[in-house]
Amino acid sequence: MVPEQSPNPNLAGYDLEDLTVATICSHSALQIFHGARQEGFKTIGITNADRREMYSSFPLGRPDEFMEVDDFKQILEPSFQQELIDRNVILVPHGSMVEYVGAEAVATRLKVPMCGNPKVLDWESDRTKEREWLEKADIKMPRLFRSPSDIREPCFVKLPGAKGGKGFRIVASEEEFRHVVEQTPDREDDDFTVQEFIIGTRYYFQMFYSPIHQDGYKAGEGRVELLGIDRRVESNIDELYRFGFSRPELAKADIERTFVVTGNLPMVLRESMLPRVFEMSRNIVNVSLDLFYPGIVGAFCIETVLTDDLEFFVFEISARIVAGSNLYPLGSQYTEFMFGEPMSTGRRISRDINVARKQGELHKVVF
Amino acid sequence: MVPEQSPNPNLAGYDLEDLTVATICSHSALQIFHGARQEGFKTIGITNADRREMYSSFPLGRPDEFMEVDDFKQILEPSFQQELIDRNVILVPHGSMVEYVGAEAVATRLKVPMCGNPKVLDWESDRTKEREWLEKADIKMPRLFRSPSDIREPCFVKLPGAKGGKGFRIVASEEEFRHVVEQTPDREDDDFTVQEFIIGTRYYFQMFYSPIHQDGYKAGEGRVELLGIDRRVESNIDELYRFGFSRPELAKADIERTFVVTGNLPMVLRESMLPRVFEMSRNIVNVSLDLFYPGIVGAFCIETVLTDDLEFFVFEISARIVAGSNLYPLGSQYTEFMFGEPMSTGRRISRDINVARKQGELHKVVF
Amino acid sequence: MVPEQSPNPNLAGYDLEDLTVATICSHSALQIFHGARQEGFKTIGITNADRREMYSSFPLGRPDEFMEVDDFKQILEPSFQQELIDRNVILVPHGSMVEYVGAEAVATRLKVPMCGNPKVLDWESDRTKEREWLEKADIKMPRLFRSPSDIREPCFVKLPGAKGGKGFRIVASEEEFRHVVEQTPDREDDDFTVQEFIIGTRYYFQMFYSPIHQDGYKAGEGRVELLGIDRRVESNIDELYRFGFSRPELAKADIERTFVVTGNLPMVLRESMLPRVFEMSRNIVNVSLDLFYPGIVGAFCIETVLTDDLEFFVFEISARIVAGSNLYPLGSQYTEFMFGEPMSTGRRISRDINVARKQGELHKVVF
Repeated sequence: MVPEQSPNPNLAGYDLEDLTVATICSHSALQIFHGARQEGFKTIGITNADRREMYSSFPLGRPDEFMEVDDFKQILEPSFQQELIDRNVILVPHGSMVEYVGAEAVATRLKVPMCGNPKVLDWESDRTKEREWLEKADIKMPRLFRSPSDIREPCFVKLPGAKGGKGFRIVASEEEFRHVVEQTPDREDDDFTVQEFIIGTRYYFQMFYSPIHQDGYKAGEGRVELLGIDRRVESNIDELYRFGFSRPELAKADIERTFVVTGNLPMVLRESMLPRVFEMSRNIVNVSLDLFYPGIVGAFCIETVLTDDLEFFVFEISARIVAGSNLYPLGSQYTEFMFGEPMSTGRRISRDINVARKQGELHKVVF
Repeated sequence: MVPEQSPNPNLAGYDLEDLTVATICSHSALQIFHGARQEGFKTIGITNADRREMYSSFPLGRPDEFMEVDDFKQILEPSFQQELIDRNVILVPHGSMVEYVGAEAVATRLKVPMCGNPKVLDWESDRTKEREWLEKADIKMPRLFRSPSDIREPCFVKLPGAKGGKGFRIVASEEEFRHVVEQTPDREDDDFTVQEFIIGTRYYFQMFYSPIHQDGYKAGEGRVELLGIDRRVESNIDELYRFGFSRPELAKADIERTFVVTGNLPMVLRESMLPRVFEMSRNIVNVSLDLFYPGIVGAFCIETVLTDDLEFFVFEISARIVAGSNLYPLGSQYTEFMFGEPMSTGRRISRDINVARKQGELHKVVF
Repeated sequence: MVPEQSPNPNLAGYDLEDLTVATICSHSALQIFHGARQEGFKTIGITNADRREMYSSFPLGRPDEFMEVDDFKQILEPSFQQELIDRNVILVPHGSMVEYVGAEAVATRLKVPMCGNPKVLDWESDRTKEREWLEKADIKMPRLFRSPSDIREPCFVKLPGAKGGKGFRIVASEEEFRHVVEQTPDREDDDFTVQEFIIGTRYYFQMFYSPIHQDGYKAGEGRVELLGIDRRVESNIDELYRFGFSRPELAKADIERTFVVTGNLPMVLRESMLPRVFEMSRNIVNVSLDLFYPGIVGAFCIETVLTDDLEFFVFEISARIVAGSNLYPLGSQYTEFMFGEPMSTGRRISRDINVARKQGELHKVVF
């Protein structure tokens, strides 16, 4: 048996009949509020003045209440945190929260009970540790180029922690790599990850792992769930083809290929590949239990390229709700086969809180 | 206070308990009939003989009754119009109706009460006026090239009023522009719009503005609604990449890039960009109130490119239901957060008629 | 009147109050089981050990019971078939079943009652017969190149019966064609189909033809149904543009363009083109009645390219459920206008069994 996890001490004082789900107004907040409301929770949206109007435009997607801040880092202030704790708040973190507040601060300085295991931040933000994790899970990844002088074919250059793909580039030589580094203020060679460019079609798998006994569907038969699939839409790379590639006058324009995420498209996967998706997901969960118990709890995303040999290469995992799940506020092609009721990722998160709450297992999904 | 609008005189004689929604069988008619039926209205489909069978194949998307014409311009005939008026018909205009009947005729010769403010036709079909409108709304647009001799980079050449993208081209020099003009019968330089080609990812926002008190959702908090997002699929430009761009023998084939709209893909937008979409939409509505009161009433579409700097460029607005909304007969990812019931754009139009009817405000949405 | 079809003799012994729907666990099995359950049938999934866990993960998409085999060809064994027959099984064939078991074996050696007319296999797997069928239906197809020496423009080279697009290539000369043949073990020139490469946007139409009286919607008005539209996502061709086409160092990489199906995207079609889709579908059905009565019963798919002249070219038809319908487990944009309740292709198949069963017409849809 695995050792008991010591619960967040603040959770002990919570009134489990009066929980509130809160998040920062960005990223996937509409479905988080919507899903929390479906599960009967109150909701708080932490917002700046600019976004308030937009969220207010959606009667069923807006929070019951706003808490306005000038800078999202304010949520770290003890008084702000205390107010959230006094109101029995469970925070749902998302990519923008990690970006705005900082991964380190979210993991170490936020005392408000939060969905998901904060230890995972260490393992997904450190490229060496992430690779160790995925290799143990028997998952293929793009090769890493450790020295710029090894670059002799097109490679994908990334800045870890980059915001929504900002600054990603393709380079095909050391010289092009140097050019990217020079263009990026305050960065050195070592700050960049240089990955093999895998050619194939991208699939982003929105997964969920619940460590608790499940009531909503038959437990023991599928603890790892597939909640949806999407493809990111990146500007300008995904429509650069419209401009054209071959005509000399266009080549002269010398447009840099960029990879800024602007939205998402819905997809389904060839069904005969689904067993491999579940296998990868279970391996990722199982290895996470060994590496940082209780592992990757809740929503996560496996970001893949599927080659013409029908092999998946995983270029990234995200350990929380991803924006691609915004495609499915009423559930996806896959949740229909699992729940038989509308089930967004936002609702799934609140459902897990709800079921855990009733079963006295809240400390297994909120930390 | 704004001055009262004088209502369509024909509306005065209508039996508000026995309204009929009608449109031409094309474009988005299935969802218009379907949505009208959901709101309890009778429906009439104006069709030619060829299309009748297809519409009949959809028991819930077909009209209750067909009125068959040989030429859609027949709806301008006084006797035809009188029959519609006698039957308490409200027309829902769409892009194909404007195309088949003519923008001028729709605005000036159609006496049948119609959804949306006909004054808008002036402002969207005249490229100078449209630009004035959008500039006042603080919206970025692609630069215009006023003289062909200024063309020194790839530009997008459009024929205003072109049918579904027919005849659109990319040119990179005055010479290529001349070639396009020569290929187009009965047209001169001045008939063409030459726009900067903005590189990024396209998002088409299906918006709705209702000037009346809303019952279906909380009013005053979001009068401008986002009903869905799509991307147009254009032939051949959107699959030309499959043919290949680089191999010399393919280049020899010298295939012209074309932009004929053939369908639509569903999308969601990065949530942090939604506030800007609402801001643009509200600005567009507010400026329209100043320019042609009561402004852009009902469904409209903002057609954008989102660059890798996360800036929107608006290359067009459409002042009525767009075909991209055909993706969402049960509502989109965004209507779910607003209505909590299936809400297509077609239904939203009939819902507005319905609510206005009950509140004695029909003249605010039907003209 | 057409002659009566003699029913599958095994069907005579079936208990119509206790039917079971079965298929092989692959391709579109989740929606087939899900749809059969919605129509009140028991379900059996024929699986190998590897796939069992994945299907078990979907409580509403998994079969009630698994029958495990080592090799899917085992379903041909008389004792296996007898067990299915003893349990009143109706098989729903899909592309993977045809691939795993063999088209010839499915058509001639399977005695278990099966949805759809097995005679169709002859007509879709033989390129000459398929062309005869489609030409009689007044449908445009890509030109065929009968001699490799005629190849002077980019052509699409296919291996009939190829698995999910494996081995498809583009060639632009006889020399390139020879190269493809040499790379393919045990194949000769004549085994390959060389087709004109049609440039446009792809639309895959998921159709359904029911020969029986319909209760679920008004019969006689639309016997041919459009259940959904998708676009296949093929690796690597559909994301090769991200790698780039024009830079010399990339050209050197000399990446082969490949067409392996990995998934599907949802689409809607320009509404004014729908009448042509219905016309093509009705022609295909009507000609099939002449060529191999009772024709193409049940689900089929028309695979098209839509050019910028708004003409459809049909490059293939599939005579059963296609994987693109996996996009629509609750129905598509088009079924909503037809059924007013969630209707996947999987459910539509079971609905037809159900209605036929009650009306004593099961032999008209199960053979």
